[in-house]
Amino acid sequence: MTGPAATAESALAQHISAVSLIDQHVHGCWLTPGDRRRFENALNEANTEPLAEFDSGFDSQLGFAVRNHCSQVLGLPRHTDPQDYWQRRSQFSEVELARLFLRAAGVSRWLFDTGIAGDTTDLATLRDLSGSRAAEVVRLEQVAEQAAQAPGDYVTAFDAILRRRMVTAVGTKSILAYRGGFEGDLTEPPAAQVAEAAQRWRDDGGTRLRDRVLLRFGLHQALRLGKPLQLHVGFGDRDCDLHRTNPLLLLDFLRQSGDTPIVLLHCYPYEREAGYLAQAFNNVYVDCGLSVNHLGARAPAFLARLLELAPFRKIVYSSDGFGPAELHYLGAALWRNGIHRVLGEFVASGDWSEGDAIRVVDLIAHDNAARIYAFDSG
Amino acid sequence: MTGPAATAESALAQHISAVSLIDQHVHGCWLTPGDRRRFENALNEANTEPLAEFDSGFDSQLGFAVRNHCSQVLGLPRHTDPQDYWQRRSQFSEVELARLFLRAAGVSRWLFDTGIAGDTTDLATLRDLSGSRAAEVVRLEQVAEQAAQAPGDYVTAFDAILRRRMVTAVGTKSILAYRGGFEGDLTEPPAAQVAEAAQRWRDDGGTRLRDRVLLRFGLHQALRLGKPLQLHVGFGDRDCDLHRTNPLLLLDFLRQSGDTPIVLLHCYPYEREAGYLAQAFNNVYVDCGLSVNHLGARAPAFLARLLELAPFRKIVYSSDGFGPAELHYLGAALWRNGIHRVLGEFVASGDWSEGDAIRVVDLIAHDNAARIYAFDSG
Amino acid sequence: MTGPAATAESALAQHISAVSLIDQHVHGCWLTPGDRRRFENALNEANTEPLAEFDSGFDSQLGFAVRNHCSQVLGLPRHTDPQDYWQRRSQFSEVELARLFLRAAGVSRWLFDTGIAGDTTDLATLRDLSGSRAAEVVRLEQVAEQAAQAPGDYVTAFDAILRRRMVTAVGTKSILAYRGGFEGDLTEPPAAQVAEAAQRWRDDGGTRLRDRVLLRFGLHQALRLGKPLQLHVGFGDRDCDLHRTNPLLLLDFLRQSGDTPIVLLHCYPYEREAGYLAQAFNNVYVDCGLSVNHLGARAPAFLARLLELAPFRKIVYSSDGFGPAELHYLGAALWRNGIHRVLGEFVASGDWSEGDAIRVVDLIAHDNAARIYAFDSG
Repeated sequence: MTGPAATAESALAQHISAVSLIDQHVHGCWLTPGDRRRFENALNEANTEPLAEFDSGFDSQLGFAVRNHCSQVLGLPRHTDPQDYWQRRSQFSEVELARLFLRAAGVSRWLFDTGIAGDTTDLATLRDLSGSRAAEVVRLEQVAEQAAQAPGDYVTAFDAILRRRMVTAVGTKSILAYRGGFEGDLTEPPAAQVAEAAQRWRDDGGTRLRDRVLLRFGLHQALRLGKPLQLHVGFGDRDCDLHRTNPLLLLDFLRQSGDTPIVLLHCYPYEREAGYLAQAFNNVYVDCGLSVNHLGARAPAFLARLLELAPFRKIVYSSDGFGPAELHYLGAALWRNGIHRVLGEFVASGDWSEGDAIRVVDLIAHDNAARIYAFDSG
Repeated sequence: MTGPAATAESALAQHISAVSLIDQHVHGCWLTPGDRRRFENALNEANTEPLAEFDSGFDSQLGFAVRNHCSQVLGLPRHTDPQDYWQRRSQFSEVELARLFLRAAGVSRWLFDTGIAGDTTDLATLRDLSGSRAAEVVRLEQVAEQAAQAPGDYVTAFDAILRRRMVTAVGTKSILAYRGGFEGDLTEPPAAQVAEAAQRWRDDGGTRLRDRVLLRFGLHQALRLGKPLQLHVGFGDRDCDLHRTNPLLLLDFLRQSGDTPIVLLHCYPYEREAGYLAQAFNNVYVDCGLSVNHLGARAPAFLARLLELAPFRKIVYSSDGFGPAELHYLGAALWRNGIHRVLGEFVASGDWSEGDAIRVVDLIAHDNAARIYAFDSG
Repeated sequence: MTGPAATAESALAQHISAVSLIDQHVHGCWLTPGDRRRFENALNEANTEPLAEFDSGFDSQLGFAVRNHCSQVLGLPRHTDPQDYWQRRSQFSEVELARLFLRAAGVSRWLFDTGIAGDTTDLATLRDLSGSRAAEVVRLEQVAEQAAQAPGDYVTAFDAILRRRMVTAVGTKSILAYRGGFEGDLTEPPAAQVAEAAQRWRDDGGTRLRDRVLLRFGLHQALRLGKPLQLHVGFGDRDCDLHRTNPLLLLDFLRQSGDTPIVLLHCYPYEREAGYLAQAFNNVYVDCGLSVNHLGARAPAFLARLLELAPFRKIVYSSDGFGPAELHYLGAALWRNGIHRVLGEFVASGDWSEGDAIRVVDLIAHDNAARIYAFDSG
């Protein structure tokens, strides 16, 4: 927690400080050195261009949160200024930073979406540096792109790659949000259409899947596996049309999705809609990753909105950390801070008991994720 | 109110505790015994299937609110655990529970939407058990379904049934939200189209109206009556497409709706859009029913959002209670709690005077509803 | 600030009380006397008809805020009742009221959208009465309507009028939101299409531009100038379809908008979406005008939501005052009150340092606007 003194801390505050997290959606941390420009650009998610000259990645909720929370991990005072933060950070290698921040996060397991290429930690390195368990989440569009390059029949190749990777992986993920969004038909396409679309796509080079038939095919193959399917929803970079990622556009898809857990990631600014879906469907879950980091001091307001219609057994934690190792840690720090702020108020107002609040913390921190990914406890 | 002591209570708090409510949209309470599964399922609104094995209706904002507020009506401590709550509840018949909870709500009048079939209290029983007045709200789609089964011309039958029922009823209601949503043409259809659509529908059996022409016909007949027309907006079960119930999709309809009061029910997550419409049209009102119950500890945040653009003479109260008698009571308890939280903060911050806050409580609690439904005061 | 005592005031509170504002979007104040009905109607933005008999413009967040904040400027106690407020106000001429309220606002510069006709102050009078600097913002649809009435080629006339007015003007504004909304193609139309559309429009009389081709032409001419382009977004009167003014519908337009600053005005209820766009595009800014006035006691919640994803160098202040001189003042009073409430909580919770909060106040109050409109400081 961020409070100065521990003596007068409530049982809820103590519990939140100590609770171990399953971070159910992360990517890798940087391994190679970079300049301050790279770092500041990594504090802006939505922009796909470098920040303007007049701007600074530090002048945002995320930037302020880095200076508040991450500074302490590096032995700096809170709210340290950007220049001091950058200088201190520069005294460490990215690997050292990763070790520091990953271990400070209080995360017992990482679920690692390996679908982003780049010079970042792989699964084994993440495991080593953090000293925690880690398991893979397989990106469906990457499987499709591998299948497009594989010999033989597309469907057979897709299935073979997916099944091979799912021997150790614990779930799948789709970035349909970035490949045209959620509007339109998301039913399972007939085999003949799939074959035809695959042929057309292979003829075009078979890279960066945007074909709706093949995107739909991938989703339904994932449903069939029964393992949790994560969907990018809402907030991300401007390559996706944010309004086409409103999760209510998934209603028809969800109505036919059976029992496979579907986890709606990020969700901002549609977290209230996502919470509704988590109440409406036994197999739908909501997550707070990415949003909590970028909202900083406003993360408590977001977490409160996520606690509106979503049943408490349907909410999971993630950081969605990628790039600067700060983000893997900061997600946890801001979640702990925010959930304490929100549940602490519910308790202070008499709306909830402290015991209930502690139990809900456990559900979101690890119990719900452990149940849907079938982990043993702890 | 939820505060422990009454001595130091503000005039605002005392007023809110005691103010009598017009609950302008409810359904019936259960009359027949049921098991715990029925009870827990009734705590989830959006899901149309039974809750999953791993889930519990108690683990939601509504479930926590039942354990906090309703427990006290049954002589249990606040935050009593689900098992104890269930056992205590089981010591009463549903009729006894209804008598207890209805009388505890502090409601002087119930406006009863009789359009849901099921083994629940009728209007007379609601009146008897609560000891309060009650009047009917007529569901237009039910009138249509009755007209489809009646002999003779559909339009004549619809009008005759509607006018007969409106002799004692105080308003109408439409669930257009569940029958295709608000998108598209909502103008009054020409007589020939109505006749043709009615014939087609009767030929198909004349049940569960979904024909847009006949839905539009019903709405415009209701407008003609001049009595308030309630519209289901937003939050409900997943049979409706939530994004097709955004009340902004009603703009063209509202522009041609004349002076008939139109009450937007529930509204979540579109309460800010609904508040805008209440400012934009002299005849549009917003309501908080259903949402307040399901939001529990987050109901104050919802009520605060409802107090953004909506003029204070355009906001009304309801619980939308249906099934467990707890919900008729809990709506009132959470509204009292929430409006105190919100207006108390406006007063504490100096933004509002306490006298103004008390007057706004009266407007929302009963004055606005008394005006539009033409009740004498009290 | 609204707090009673100054002695214990924080440095942040003192800074906010004293900070001078650039009000980057206003209109004129009334000059001619009017009755109470005119005044009350001016407290409702969304309704295009006179308020109903049963209603009062005072019974709204804006009405309560007038009685709280503006009463003090007129020497009345806070929360003075509507009748007393009206009587006191009636003792002054509109010119006297303008002098009082404009000077009380603490605004160093006004950016004046001259596109609304009516018996209100012009630029010179606003400057005189306020004792502050003022510069024009040119409404593109007005330029188009002037060009339609001008002799010769439409494009040449449009360009000549625009360039002549932009010699002294500091930016442009579009009310595309009111002329069909943001949906659909917003690319630059080919010259032949523009010529044809202009001819058709001139043949029809050339008033109230709604032609999409010519609206698009105007936007792209404005982009070419490089001076800031203000766009009406969200909240306004019911002549616009609110859901068609969701700023996410501008995504494709923004993707091709280059470096010209684009300022999203008002934004309610899409302020979170607007904040996302301010993060996603180096040239996009968000503004709080109109909304802050109409939200009154709920303005802090709005300002907090505006501080979610929007980078702090991308947020600007305006009142959008028009008509009653109260509104030019009240925007500033509510912004000071609200930003203090929000940033004060960030500081109290330890999320932000006070020094950072003070710096962000300066950015929003004037630094960001000074940068994009190229003013010298102060």
